[in-house]
Amino acid sequence: MNETASGDAITEKTGQEPIFDTVTLIGVGLIGSSIARAIRRRNLARRIVAGVRPGRTANELRELQIVDEIIEDLPAAAAKGDLVIFCTPLGTFASIAEAIGPALKPGAIVSDVGSVKSTVIRDVGPHVPEGRHLVPAHPVAGTEQSGPSAGFAELFDNRWCIITPAPETDLGAVAQVIKFWEGCGSKIEIMTPRHHDLVLAITSHVPHLIAFNIVGTASDLETVTNSEVIKYSAGGFRDFTRIAASDPTMWRDVFLANKDAVLEMLGRFTEDLTALQRAIRWGDGETLYNLFSRTRAIRRQIIDAGQETPKPDFGRHGG
Amino acid sequence: MNETASGDAITEKTGQEPIFDTVTLIGVGLIGSSIARAIRRRNLARRIVAGVRPGRTANELRELQIVDEIIEDLPAAAAKGDLVIFCTPLGTFASIAEAIGPALKPGAIVSDVGSVKSTVIRDVGPHVPEGRHLVPAHPVAGTEQSGPSAGFAELFDNRWCIITPAPETDLGAVAQVIKFWEGCGSKIEIMTPRHHDLVLAITSHVPHLIAFNIVGTASDLETVTNSEVIKYSAGGFRDFTRIAASDPTMWRDVFLANKDAVLEMLGRFTEDLTALQRAIRWGDGETLYNLFSRTRAIRRQIIDAGQETPKPDFGRHGG
Repeated sequence: MNETASGDAITEKTGQEPIFDTVTLIGVGLIGSSIARAIRRRNLARRIVAGVRPGRTANELRELQIVDEIIEDLPAAAAKGDLVIFCTPLGTFASIAEAIGPALKPGAIVSDVGSVKSTVIRDVGPHVPEGRHLVPAHPVAGTEQSGPSAGFAELFDNRWCIITPAPETDLGAVAQVIKFWEGCGSKIEIMTPRHHDLVLAITSHVPHLIAFNIVGTASDLETVTNSEVIKYSAGGFRDFTRIAASDPTMWRDVFLANKDAVLEMLGRFTEDLTALQRAIRWGDGETLYNLFSRTRAIRRQIIDAGQETPKPDFGRHGG
Repeated sequence: MNETASGDAITEKTGQEPIFDTVTLIGVGLIGSSIARAIRRRNLARRIVAGVRPGRTANELRELQIVDEIIEDLPAAAAKGDLVIFCTPLGTFASIAEAIGPALKPGAIVSDVGSVKSTVIRDVGPHVPEGRHLVPAHPVAGTEQSGPSAGFAELFDNRWCIITPAPETDLGAVAQVIKFWEGCGSKIEIMTPRHHDLVLAITSHVPHLIAFNIVGTASDLETVTNSEVIKYSAGGFRDFTRIAASDPTMWRDVFLANKDAVLEMLGRFTEDLTALQRAIRWGDGETLYNLFSRTRAIRRQIIDAGQETPKPDFGRHGG
């Protein structure tokens, strides 16, 4: 095995045995390409195969040289994988699973990186033949950018990866997926798909929905122009545009897939917002002050948990 | 005049004549202390006086050595200023104006940094005697931190400062306030208080309210624990906690002062959110996709306008 000098981040190999012979990535955007880079960084697999549709992504991938083989035929790519990871938007899972299911190797593990987990069981599960193992996973990491060039090996470092296996799943397969994500730098949590979808609805899906929504509201006003919204965005608005710049297809599919949990959490959010609105209308400063003090404490806990940096970022470049 | 070597950021003096003899800051927190540092950086005044109440801020200020004199008596501090800037929460303006009004020098300019402008005219205006000039201003800049130690000289660089003088205001006084904020690094815009308050309601106040609200909602759930919310905050939630960590007193006062515009914008936001909620419930992916594509474009415009950095910041330290 090729032990390269340190300083070459892509091949910073640890010398340990690879966990898988071949990992096949189905779809290679921000997350897929970050996985490819993380695999190379720690030598987690002997070979990385990318299964992509012909087009722009395939060309971009060829230039990036972060995978060993690009196959523009999903079943043919899946047939090579000991671990096959769906890295496409959730809405594609059912049809891709149907297409690649019959091609899967005996003993192969099928996983994914989708932000909703109950639909993975529903859409992919029935297409995984006897003797192959479905172990859904969700690395809670990302950026507002998309496409294979936006990926980087460190994306998963110190982030949580939630694994949601069905109770009857082969424990050996679950253990290998855990080892794989630990190798990518993640910390692991196991939960049920239903609980995962509730947790992510409040920590990720509803925040994104609200961000998309206020950016839309602001751009539709008649009394304030778009150019004013853009000019004065440093007052707080720009923080929302960051997450409202996330991939539209991925997010459309997330909301359609996690409908029940999102509507439940959105109901709570709206109820609370109505109470705040009432406090403002009636000049109830105490209610406002009490909430605002409480939320500040939560920020501190997130920083203490290593999930955020304390650097003052409103000022962006200063400080 | 002392021409220090470059590298000393605080006294990077340009050699130009100061704009004011004495600037008095009434209250010195994040914004006040950033103004003091920006004054020193470009030699915008010969002397900086801080008018503060006895206590923690006064002690912190003494250690920081960013002002020339600390006076724990607001009228006595105001009496020294050629420019007197209110840097306290909006709710204090009326009583402070009443106290310092009679002490103001003939020809003195009174200004502020408040996030709502129509109430400044209402609360401060009546207490400014004949021959003194009220020129309200709002530098659209800040961080999620507070207190004098959190300030820095570059906070206003390339940010907008909105000035909202009444039509009858002395033009010389307005010109001096413009020059002062340009010296602090800001770009200047003039508008009416009413329009300012509408623009800020959508670009700053409602975004903050929503952020405070969702952080509150998340921390009150029974089905998802606080420690789960904190663990998985990298999925989007943590972006909201940043602005929900802003100063509670300041923000209580902003919402009480800008009630009408905030309620108006909040009504629009809620109406749009209800439409999105309906699209999710009925599986209308096209409506979702169209909105999400539109919001991405607005992000690009904000980056192009120099009000944000394109660096992928979900990944925080990577990329």
